[in-house]
Amino acid sequence: MSTRLSSASEYDALLEKYDTWMFDCDGVLWHGDRLIEGAIDVLQLLRSRNKQVLFVTNNATKSRKSYKGKFDKLGVEAHVDEIYGSAYAAAVYISSVMKLPKDKKVYVIGMKGMEEELQGEGVSFIGGMDPADCTLETFSLDHFTLDPDVGAVLCGLDTNINYTKLSKAFQYLTRNPGCAFLVTNEDSTYPAGAGLLPGAGAISAPLRYALGRDPISIGKPASTMLDCIKAKVNFDPKRTIMVGDRLNTDILFGQGGGLATLLVLSGITTEAEISGPNPSPTVPDYVTSSIGDLRAAAKN
Amino acid sequence: MSTRLSSASEYDALLEKYDTWMFDCDGVLWHGDRLIEGAIDVLQLLRSRNKQVLFVTNNATKSRKSYKGKFDKLGVEAHVDEIYGSAYAAAVYISSVMKLPKDKKVYVIGMKGMEEELQGEGVSFIGGMDPADCTLETFSLDHFTLDPDVGAVLCGLDTNINYTKLSKAFQYLTRNPGCAFLVTNEDSTYPAGAGLLPGAGAISAPLRYALGRDPISIGKPASTMLDCIKAKVNFDPKRTIMVGDRLNTDILFGQGGGLATLLVLSGITTEAEISGPNPSPTVPDYVTSSIGDLRAAAKN
Repeated sequence: MSTRLSSASEYDALLEKYDTWMFDCDGVLWHGDRLIEGAIDVLQLLRSRNKQVLFVTNNATKSRKSYKGKFDKLGVEAHVDEIYGSAYAAAVYISSVMKLPKDKKVYVIGMKGMEEELQGEGVSFIGGMDPADCTLETFSLDHFTLDPDVGAVLCGLDTNINYTKLSKAFQYLTRNPGCAFLVTNEDSTYPAGAGLLPGAGAISAPLRYALGRDPISIGKPASTMLDCIKAKVNFDPKRTIMVGDRLNTDILFGQGGGLATLLVLSGITTEAEISGPNPSPTVPDYVTSSIGDLRAAAKN
Repeated sequence: MSTRLSSASEYDALLEKYDTWMFDCDGVLWHGDRLIEGAIDVLQLLRSRNKQVLFVTNNATKSRKSYKGKFDKLGVEAHVDEIYGSAYAAAVYISSVMKLPKDKKVYVIGMKGMEEELQGEGVSFIGGMDPADCTLETFSLDHFTLDPDVGAVLCGLDTNINYTKLSKAFQYLTRNPGCAFLVTNEDSTYPAGAGLLPGAGAISAPLRYALGRDPISIGKPASTMLDCIKAKVNFDPKRTIMVGDRLNTDILFGQGGGLATLLVLSGITTEAEISGPNPSPTVPDYVTSSIGDLRAAAKN
């Protein structure tokens, strides 16, 4: 049973209880390019009380550096080393956990942010934003040369998704022995300001379906993302809270890592999903309407 | 337990036993643009013995008329009314079974053949080969106008698949009340001469994943395809045999319709899948290496 927060003293107690605050961004701090009311105040409140603030996003289209640009644009204080994206976590996983040999490379279905994070970790790649792969020209196996050095396919949200990319990735995954199949995250949709659009999980769905096998997923709710954060910053899971708008990513992620969880109803999850006749089996510790509600603590 | 055919008298008995012969094409009669040895002879043999010959393909990229062009090019006798494709069956389903009102239209993820079959059945559509939809330009909901008359999304193999098409289809399926979700077929891959490429099921996988629901599938193994054939030609299921190279489409299709089934090992299904340590639960009535084996009957 979740605790439904409402009084100033409840919000204040929450602030007292947790030292590290991990935030999902889309649907929690903003919708597309529109800030959620009170988000800046609450982040400032947390910082003023010496809380550790981290941003944990499955968005793999932006590198941490360019994601920081989004915070700047919206006037939200954030530092690159507070931002954990699934593209960064994927690059760290490939270089440090998988330890892909330096003479091997990754075939990328993804965008500039993913390329930047791979470069940052010294991982070679092909595909991605290469104009030869961003095409609707007919793909023919007769004109395709398999690169035997591709040791992994990494797939994230890619709005340039097309049949050439899918076909090449499929060739590597079926013809290069041991080629790993990685996805940044499995979000079915993402909030795009005016509504929902197909998410990273939808982009990798053709490969999962054609291969008949599941990938290694890096982002929330997978523990890989938390392992990546743990390798970089110190925090006590018992005094850490994950704030998110999605039960099947944010809340599951927090629970899997032994963190407390706060669900905000400003994004994907609706009231009916937690209190309707068929509530989700994923039950957050706390629920509130919006991040802005935490401003009540300041008045206490 | 399947009967493994090998002797001339066995092939001859098979010809005696069945009056209607339904053939899958890719992997049975040809691989890409290469005829399978003996295919022409066997079809001629069947015709010379007054057998009814039908071609039942999940290929939805070609209309029956343009598919006939492929038979002509390869020198295989075929008539348009002997050819049943999943695009045609989908168009018949929309016009005659679903009875989509004339003022409604279909949003198409598919190619020219699907458009031609919809036109042939008098079904209005948008999307498909429209240059505005065949683009890698960024899709934005802000610039998208929902057409309230879209009453169905039909998705087949589309080598122009892109994020705009997926996003538009997703909007119709989530925002137009009652919008039907149809796919021509769910083949995970298809044989493309030099190897396998992602099939129609992979193209619709992003929508299935983003929506969290399954579509109505028209092609093999669904019974919709057989219903479509039944509406056009007379045949006795007890004296009909389905010849195919895929257990999970062709053979299941035949079995679901009460037809006999002959698996050829010239395409997708390997010997190991039927006689290995973990054989498929789908067991065809008969198995032979290749359609060309049936030539043995002629000598009898």
